[in-house]
Amino acid sequence: MNHSMISYILGFVLKFEAIFMLLPCLVAVIYREQTGFAYLIMFVFCFGMGHFFSHKKPENQIFYAKEGFIMVSLSWLVMSVFGALPFVITQEIPSFTDALFETISGFTTTGASILNDVEALSHCSLFWRSFTHWVGGMGVFVFILAVLPLAGGQNVHLLKSESPGPEVGKLVPRLRHTSAILYGIYFVMTVIEIILLLIAKMPLFDSITIAFGTAGTGGFGIRNDSIAEYNIHIQNIITVFMILFGVNFNAYYLLLKKKKANIFKLEEVRWYFGIIAASILLITFNIRNMVPNIGMAFQQAAFQVGSIITTTGYSTVDFNQWPELSKNILVLIMMIGACAGSTGGGIKVSRIIILFKNLKKELQRFIHPRSVKRIKMDGKVVEPPIVHGVTVFLIAYVIIYAVSCILISIDNFDLETNFTAVAATLNNIGPGLSKVGPTQNFSLFSPFSKYVLMFDMLAGRLELFPMLLLFSPSIWKER
Amino acid sequence: MNHSMISYILGFVLKFEAIFMLLPCLVAVIYREQTGFAYLIMFVFCFGMGHFFSHKKPENQIFYAKEGFIMVSLSWLVMSVFGALPFVITQEIPSFTDALFETISGFTTTGASILNDVEALSHCSLFWRSFTHWVGGMGVFVFILAVLPLAGGQNVHLLKSESPGPEVGKLVPRLRHTSAILYGIYFVMTVIEIILLLIAKMPLFDSITIAFGTAGTGGFGIRNDSIAEYNIHIQNIITVFMILFGVNFNAYYLLLKKKKANIFKLEEVRWYFGIIAASILLITFNIRNMVPNIGMAFQQAAFQVGSIITTTGYSTVDFNQWPELSKNILVLIMMIGACAGSTGGGIKVSRIIILFKNLKKELQRFIHPRSVKRIKMDGKVVEPPIVHGVTVFLIAYVIIYAVSCILISIDNFDLETNFTAVAATLNNIGPGLSKVGPTQNFSLFSPFSKYVLMFDMLAGRLELFPMLLLFSPSIWKER
Repeated sequence: MNHSMISYILGFVLKFEAIFMLLPCLVAVIYREQTGFAYLIMFVFCFGMGHFFSHKKPENQIFYAKEGFIMVSLSWLVMSVFGALPFVITQEIPSFTDALFETISGFTTTGASILNDVEALSHCSLFWRSFTHWVGGMGVFVFILAVLPLAGGQNVHLLKSESPGPEVGKLVPRLRHTSAILYGIYFVMTVIEIILLLIAKMPLFDSITIAFGTAGTGGFGIRNDSIAEYNIHIQNIITVFMILFGVNFNAYYLLLKKKKANIFKLEEVRWYFGIIAASILLITFNIRNMVPNIGMAFQQAAFQVGSIITTTGYSTVDFNQWPELSKNILVLIMMIGACAGSTGGGIKVSRIIILFKNLKKELQRFIHPRSVKRIKMDGKVVEPPIVHGVTVFLIAYVIIYAVSCILISIDNFDLETNFTAVAATLNNIGPGLSKVGPTQNFSLFSPFSKYVLMFDMLAGRLELFPMLLLFSPSIWKER
Repeated sequence: MNHSMISYILGFVLKFEAIFMLLPCLVAVIYREQTGFAYLIMFVFCFGMGHFFSHKKPENQIFYAKEGFIMVSLSWLVMSVFGALPFVITQEIPSFTDALFETISGFTTTGASILNDVEALSHCSLFWRSFTHWVGGMGVFVFILAVLPLAGGQNVHLLKSESPGPEVGKLVPRLRHTSAILYGIYFVMTVIEIILLLIAKMPLFDSITIAFGTAGTGGFGIRNDSIAEYNIHIQNIITVFMILFGVNFNAYYLLLKKKKANIFKLEEVRWYFGIIAASILLITFNIRNMVPNIGMAFQQAAFQVGSIITTTGYSTVDFNQWPELSKNILVLIMMIGACAGSTGGGIKVSRIIILFKNLKKELQRFIHPRSVKRIKMDGKVVEPPIVHGVTVFLIAYVIIYAVSCILISIDNFDLETNFTAVAATLNNIGPGLSKVGPTQNFSLFSPFSKYVLMFDMLAGRLELFPMLLLFSPSIWKER
């Protein structure tokens, strides 16, 4: 285990977090809020700590997959712990457990909150809370790799653990350029959303924070009723951008480079929009009698479906009141999630496609035992190790899901609450149903359950394996 | 597709069912019940139909996996349709949909009922209902293969589709002998249970029917409160036998042949008893304040755990009133199910072991990418196709589960009801939680949902693939 390299990278992550904290400081200056000092203190502290660990480059910079996974999962833990401290210092969230829950929920782009009254927070804390979504959405290492010159090709291990989906496609031969391109697209799309929201008469502060939450598919609102108070144009702009941020970013790159004239030719994109369309239509039909007209039913269905499948978690209505069919569809698309290579969570559409194709192939083998068909996507063969990886992902997903449900059931809430609380955290969505529905929050859980759900949020964001490895005894043994 | 062979086999199945129907006729004679005529009519009708289709052996007796699966799934459908007719003829269950639900629930050893008042049934119908459990428990083809001389080695396809678990082990080189041995063990164990129940002062009729339900891990009771009214000795005898019928029958064979002095050396048996012990202890601790003393808590926990993990479904208490932790443990062991090669349903313990070992192996490959460890069970390598089959089983299981939940949610019952109704049918258990809890029944569902759940029961009993293949268009196309 290359310990010096791990602490070097952790130091780097801390320095970046320190710089990020200057932004809420700036917000505090604008709104003349004293709470801003907490972020200034944390800037100094984080930067100092970060500099201490990263001022000297280690001699042996080589690291392997194992260290890569450890670096990523530890970095996310360290970032969350330090990111939670301002909330405790300002006493806006006095309990450290709650502050950590909120911060992990932010960085993992979950958006599940323990706050009963979001509006009581200062502007700088609201900004920091939403900004964690933006940082976590594209990933910390994607950012670091875009600016940090690291020797060797092992950096792909870092990107692998942090990037959502079964395959990490390098867009261009040099990893650093890939990272830069991804962040470029991400940044430009966020800015466009902010501008459109401003045109739809949303206040500037709201536009920025809500755009952070949309871009990262996070879902922290800055009002107690999430997005319900804003006008219908704002809601529709957010609907469109949520869905756009759930698309595989590679598709945008191909579009930019004019390598694909039509991104709908990509199988994952087609399925993604197909699932969205089917869900919206079914729910519109199902809730048509609950609202004055079918147009409104469609508008509400579209917002909620876009919010849930991209695992954002904003809401404009209390979908906990919807009929069971609609609620079940929402729970299902919670698990399906967005496209691989987007900022969204969940199992990911491409994994679902591979699982279906794998099942279909096996059924065909029952009929023609000698058939040697291979699974294809976009005309290319999906290599067996990737198919295998996807099925193992499903195993890990089901096991983590079941164990989490059992553990949090100690709090004695109903099955719907437990089941959807795990769905909402493991898939990085935010709201669930019943006692964790969109008008509720996660404050009711015991500290023990909160830690279980924090694990689920991190596991979900980092694609399960890095967090599982952190708890595997054999990884800590030297070879 | 060898159509003549398929109708030949279906004819044979019908003839067997006809003979089975003579048993309720006998019961009707003893209790002087007029309803017995319905079974006599069905005997004549089934035997006639069966003879018509099977009186001439087809010239081409060769069939492949494809036909094997079709034969098994069609046989179970045909058996259920004809088995349901007596209930309709006697007007004890006037609706054909309900009668079919009850019969499929019987043959698949689910034990989910649509009857509000079981005690209103005649003795012969109660007997038939419980006898379907006994027939379905070990499997129809296991029975047929024990007595029917079929040429060729393709019969293993039939056994494969009907036998629970990832691997079909032929106990002895000749398949017919394997079937005979299995039915022998099954028969003797059932008789021992009947004798013990009689000693514990259970009436003869109750002993026989309840033993059928235990042996097949079915769970149809003949009293409205299932097993709760019987004395504690009877309950404990049933507890022990439920757990025994959930053990892999190969273990008993090895024990008989003295090939294994200690069946606890078999990994699956060890895990099975480990999960049972852990569940009983946790639930005992969890419900200790709901009953007068810890001994009673243990007795109730043991009965319910034994009933649920073996997918029997008898109950002595309303576990729907238990704390959430206990209910969640029950839902989890519903899905785990019994051992492969037993009469129980669910995913099966051996599949769970393989899934865990597969996950562990993959995690280790993250740490040591060049590792080529293979999955072992009982010291022997589990071949990759079997591991692959188990993961594909999980995919099919999750997909069927999700689709079923969505479909029955149209009835607008709560998530707990829907989720556990699917768990209770797909795993062949019987009772679920909430509106399908142990004191409730499945009569509240719409006919559409009942058909969905019937599919789930058959899919669960036949290990998913045969039923999925029945709905696959390509199987009906000629090569």
